[in-house]
Amino acid sequence: MEHVHDDPSETTGGLANIKLVIEYDGTDFHGSQVQAGQRTVQGELERALRQLTQEKVQAMFSGRTDSGVHAIGQVVNFRTSVRHDTGTYVRALNAILPKDVAVRQAEEVEPGFHSRYSARSREYRYTILNAAVPSPILRRYALHVAGKLDLAAMSRACQVLVGRHDFASFTGAGRGVPDQDSGIEVDGGDEGDTVREIYHAGLDCSCRLPEESSGRLVELDISANAFLPHMMRNIVGTLLLVGRGKIDWLGLATVLRAKDRRLAGPTAGPHGLCLMKVVY
Amino acid sequence: MEHVHDDPSETTGGLANIKLVIEYDGTDFHGSQVQAGQRTVQGELERALRQLTQEKVQAMFSGRTDSGVHAIGQVVNFRTSVRHDTGTYVRALNAILPKDVAVRQAEEVEPGFHSRYSARSREYRYTILNAAVPSPILRRYALHVAGKLDLAAMSRACQVLVGRHDFASFTGAGRGVPDQDSGIEVDGGDEGDTVREIYHAGLDCSCRLPEESSGRLVELDISANAFLPHMMRNIVGTLLLVGRGKIDWLGLATVLRAKDRRLAGPTAGPHGLCLMKVVY
Repeated sequence: MEHVHDDPSETTGGLANIKLVIEYDGTDFHGSQVQAGQRTVQGELERALRQLTQEKVQAMFSGRTDSGVHAIGQVVNFRTSVRHDTGTYVRALNAILPKDVAVRQAEEVEPGFHSRYSARSREYRYTILNAAVPSPILRRYALHVAGKLDLAAMSRACQVLVGRHDFASFTGAGRGVPDQDSGIEVDGGDEGDTVREIYHAGLDCSCRLPEESSGRLVELDISANAFLPHMMRNIVGTLLLVGRGKIDWLGLATVLRAKDRRLAGPTAGPHGLCLMKVVY
Repeated sequence: MEHVHDDPSETTGGLANIKLVIEYDGTDFHGSQVQAGQRTVQGELERALRQLTQEKVQAMFSGRTDSGVHAIGQVVNFRTSVRHDTGTYVRALNAILPKDVAVRQAEEVEPGFHSRYSARSREYRYTILNAAVPSPILRRYALHVAGKLDLAAMSRACQVLVGRHDFASFTGAGRGVPDQDSGIEVDGGDEGDTVREIYHAGLDCSCRLPEESSGRLVELDISANAFLPHMMRNIVGTLLLVGRGKIDWLGLATVLRAKDRRLAGPTAGPHGLCLMKVVY
């Protein structure tokens, strides 16, 4: 059985439970979660942990991120019999890990802590470069949208999403395709249950760009108890319909109430998305 | 003769002189300037211009940038007999160019305009991530410095550099190596002359990082009439000696006056450097 020390209820018999905060540039990863034959964040991290501890360690993630999605504050925990001080974990793992993933913090936590099941909320940011021309320097981290966007309308529409709702309209890839993602791990909540609670949703356009840039950076921040697969990117795709004047906030409310993926917008590209923080 | 329409004094007989402002991510380029068998910004741009105009066009750059150095406001001009409106140049070239270089603006300028010889000043920015741990997301655009930096001392030392000086101590690669760069094109000024005038030099630490980041972003902005090869990166390498307390501002003044490359700090990595703007 590959999954060692995975069940939070199992006896931890003398094992230390270590929590890591990690950052990664998702561009060159096939997502966070281990997949045979693919380069993944979990794969690289577990390889580094094995090298450091000489044990077969499983890294448990707060939630899965898709191919191309970034993280500044992804949280992972693992159990090990090897005792290092937490500063050693940070330094030693960063010396082993490739340049596109890094450990920002390490701490020993109580035996029952689980990065996924103990999480109270997650914060994601989606970055849009709204400019006439694309930006080579921002291309890995922001979705380029050339046309005019009504940011006030998008900001109002965001507020429709705040609260406890059934987000079935916003889960799964593509559009016009019923949810085929039953095999995908949902980050918190019961599988098959598409009710989530959004605590905060807001647009921020205050990020400065160099003065000569003829565009603006639009950051959409959403925090929720948990997110369904592709939920954040489907919300962005639908908010872009609002920004382009295709639907208004009432239209967004209709999409939400319909619980039908086919009514929402297309899934926005992964590169604009970043997991900012997980709160426990 | 490869260099068509290069001499600003030559007759332009009916050719349009087009000025472009371009942005590029220098990570995957072997510098800006055409070199046989290497991927360069000039090579990609000239290929795109040839495809668009069906002419062999030479793109003249305001100055050369090294491998790994970025630009947000590099300026290029070229002469062509093909008349496109300037919006077409932007759209058509961006459709042809690879994702790591883009045209931000295009305009027709007077026949005598030359991106290099007509430039009055250049502004460069060097970005340092001063944090305990490296950042995967910033790794292509900022130099990671883990140790504590005395930013107040660095800021004071900057001011020593402002004005008209002989920057011989700050030109050329490496350290302890006399300047071997006589073959390198100097961006403005007479070749062999190492006097330049810095108009402004300043540190800015106001750029926000996500709240959980345990570091700060330090931006060094310098504008000058022109820069010697590696001058900006050698200044950064020397200012880092100040930041680490190895020398103080008086020490920097001594390095400047000595006109001896061996006394200055090592050449800082190219990835933190970005050409922001060229003023005409």
